[in-house]
Amino acid sequence: MSLVLEAIETKKAGGELSDDVIRGVVAGYTEGSVPDYQMSALLMAVFLRGMGYGETLALTRAMAESGEAYSFPDCVDKHSTGGVGDKISLISLPIVAACGAPVAKLSGRGLGTTGGTIDKLESIPGFSVDLSETRFRRQVEEVGLAIIEAGDLAPADKAIYALRDTTGTVDSLPLIGSSIVSKKAATGAGHLLYDVKQGSGAFMKTPDDARELAGLLVRLSESLGIRASAVVTGMDTPLGGAIGNALEVRESAAFLRGDPVPKDLADEARFVAARLLQLKGIENPEASVEKALSSGAAYERLERFARAQGAAPNALENLPTARTTREVPAPRTGYVSGLAAIGVGRAALALGAGRQKKTDEIDPAAGVELLAKPGDPIEKGAPIARLHGDREAERAEGLILEAIEISDEPPHPAPAILEHFS
Amino acid sequence: MSLVLEAIETKKAGGELSDDVIRGVVAGYTEGSVPDYQMSALLMAVFLRGMGYGETLALTRAMAESGEAYSFPDCVDKHSTGGVGDKISLISLPIVAACGAPVAKLSGRGLGTTGGTIDKLESIPGFSVDLSETRFRRQVEEVGLAIIEAGDLAPADKAIYALRDTTGTVDSLPLIGSSIVSKKAATGAGHLLYDVKQGSGAFMKTPDDARELAGLLVRLSESLGIRASAVVTGMDTPLGGAIGNALEVRESAAFLRGDPVPKDLADEARFVAARLLQLKGIENPEASVEKALSSGAAYERLERFARAQGAAPNALENLPTARTTREVPAPRTGYVSGLAAIGVGRAALALGAGRQKKTDEIDPAAGVELLAKPGDPIEKGAPIARLHGDREAERAEGLILEAIEISDEPPHPAPAILEHFS
Repeated sequence: MSLVLEAIETKKAGGELSDDVIRGVVAGYTEGSVPDYQMSALLMAVFLRGMGYGETLALTRAMAESGEAYSFPDCVDKHSTGGVGDKISLISLPIVAACGAPVAKLSGRGLGTTGGTIDKLESIPGFSVDLSETRFRRQVEEVGLAIIEAGDLAPADKAIYALRDTTGTVDSLPLIGSSIVSKKAATGAGHLLYDVKQGSGAFMKTPDDARELAGLLVRLSESLGIRASAVVTGMDTPLGGAIGNALEVRESAAFLRGDPVPKDLADEARFVAARLLQLKGIENPEASVEKALSSGAAYERLERFARAQGAAPNALENLPTARTTREVPAPRTGYVSGLAAIGVGRAALALGAGRQKKTDEIDPAAGVELLAKPGDPIEKGAPIARLHGDREAERAEGLILEAIEISDEPPHPAPAILEHFS
Repeated sequence: MSLVLEAIETKKAGGELSDDVIRGVVAGYTEGSVPDYQMSALLMAVFLRGMGYGETLALTRAMAESGEAYSFPDCVDKHSTGGVGDKISLISLPIVAACGAPVAKLSGRGLGTTGGTIDKLESIPGFSVDLSETRFRRQVEEVGLAIIEAGDLAPADKAIYALRDTTGTVDSLPLIGSSIVSKKAATGAGHLLYDVKQGSGAFMKTPDDARELAGLLVRLSESLGIRASAVVTGMDTPLGGAIGNALEVRESAAFLRGDPVPKDLADEARFVAARLLQLKGIENPEASVEKALSSGAAYERLERFARAQGAAPNALENLPTARTTREVPAPRTGYVSGLAAIGVGRAALALGAGRQKKTDEIDPAAGVELLAKPGDPIEKGAPIARLHGDREAERAEGLILEAIEISDEPPHPAPAILEHFS
């Protein structure tokens, strides 16, 4: 019997796969000797029968070792499971770099309503996400912060993820956990913070699911020799006020410069930056974060980083803007009581801020600017959001109006979920 | 979401697939719009979550209607789940035809240790299994018995079975049941007897599994408007004394002519023939069977049938014989207490009586003649089996010696399992 059939029989019967079987099947699938239809049957058996921690770790390791791998043991990095308006990397990483924690980040592009840090950075005029390894390493040493596009990291995970996506086997905790950690392990940062988004606009809908995933990510990373912790943060509504690539860079720069931004974004950016410093063993992390912000060191670090990767001197003040904008008027007077992240994300997507499929072109200037956040009072006809970009603006407006809830009474403020697991 | 993904999600959650979804997925898979990797994920979900009777029936119907279909409402037919030395069709069908129950059979070739009726018939010199539909129908009317090779019956089942075979999803009762009944339904006989083999040499290892399958086959057939019943018969040891195509035709003809054959074969052939007559509503079926045998009518019917399909006048007396034979001596004195069907089947396969893979050529004369059956006393050195054919005769002898058990005391006669479900 072939190894993959042996694995299928074992899983069918509720048994445990050995490290050797897992390694062999992953290698076989990556090189093409295990066909899709056998792998998908195995994935469904894993999905329905579950996997123990040892199996999940073996799968993570096998996928992490399936392609290129880097090693930056002194560096910190963070990973978000994906949310609408999530620009926490753009803000928190310059802060921690300014506090003496070096950052070497290999990142990806966005798909669907989830933006990618690489796309956001590319909206900065001149910015290059394609550095040689030598130059990347030198920049980490000299600037303390470098972010490039991830190449062929964990190709086994990439292939398996694509198969899961088309065979109904995405929403399995061991498969999700091993997929995330395998990619991050291959990027090689020695200190990793996971930001698990939870809410109607996130993959994890319930706090329990989010906590379980957070715990698994930390445990898998630690087993692979990475210092790790995780935060669980809310994703019912978009984070901050900007959704779209250049818009999010602008909002991030504004915060680092000391300009006001929505409280949810400011709180979470500080929280994540402090947890990253804590991971690196830096004392009084909250005080360090405040100092980096108030002294202007964090903003300065963002500028140095952008310039080092090719941005023009004043690129952050000269981000691309949309040729047309349109304001969405509030349909009635009251209080904003809901603003569904998924709906706003779809509006930004319709405007051209993201990709429906991998080959779509994005418009760096496109997106949604929220002019009111949950809890804010609003008058009928006053602008509740500004749409940037001219692709499908009509549809985007409809999506925003669908995403908004306005109530007569001020809503009970939903507690921001900011939990930490280490 | 595509129909197949919808089906996967439903099954994952333990839900029930609607008739429309099942029909759509089967049609999509048959025409190629549903890829193998999605179908195999769905099959694994079905395997692990199970299927209710309504779903199993819908799957059976969708596969039955996926290709050519015939209709012979007045005819009887039988189907065996496959065993070593199983020549019951060759014996029972001429008997029932002689008793006035017409037989229109579309049959297949053998694979592995399981022989196929078509291969057996083709060992008769001149016999053709390829008749036009017109000629087939005319022969059913004139001779009361015609057997041809099945063409493109239930192509959906064929494709799904091939996928199951390579993805660990064969041993699922609803999938086995729907596969068998879909093919038989497409052959169109109005009266169907299923012979479910049970034992170490059969697919169904335990009596409970065999009974469950028998019940499902009858229920599915009746739901499709076919009068059906089932028997469960033993398959720990080979049936009768001959294994191999021409050898089995010779043993069948011998029984119909009134010559002695092993009791297990004689009993089962009579039992099956009587159950077929019962299905057709013929009174006193046992007495009719005896009369057809003692009068020579059954043998005469076999001859007429063979001649009608192209056999030479004395073809049944001029079956091909092997150029070389070899006797296997008993390794010690005692009583034959076991004779594993699987081992004997593998020996016949090694001699050239069957196919390891679909494209193998078979030797019609090759096979194993058993000279002792369980319960028989045997002297050391006396021949216990005769091997026909010269391909891998050495290996075949080893397999026979492994398959044989000899004990000092006469074995407790294992009761032949001859149960009937209707």
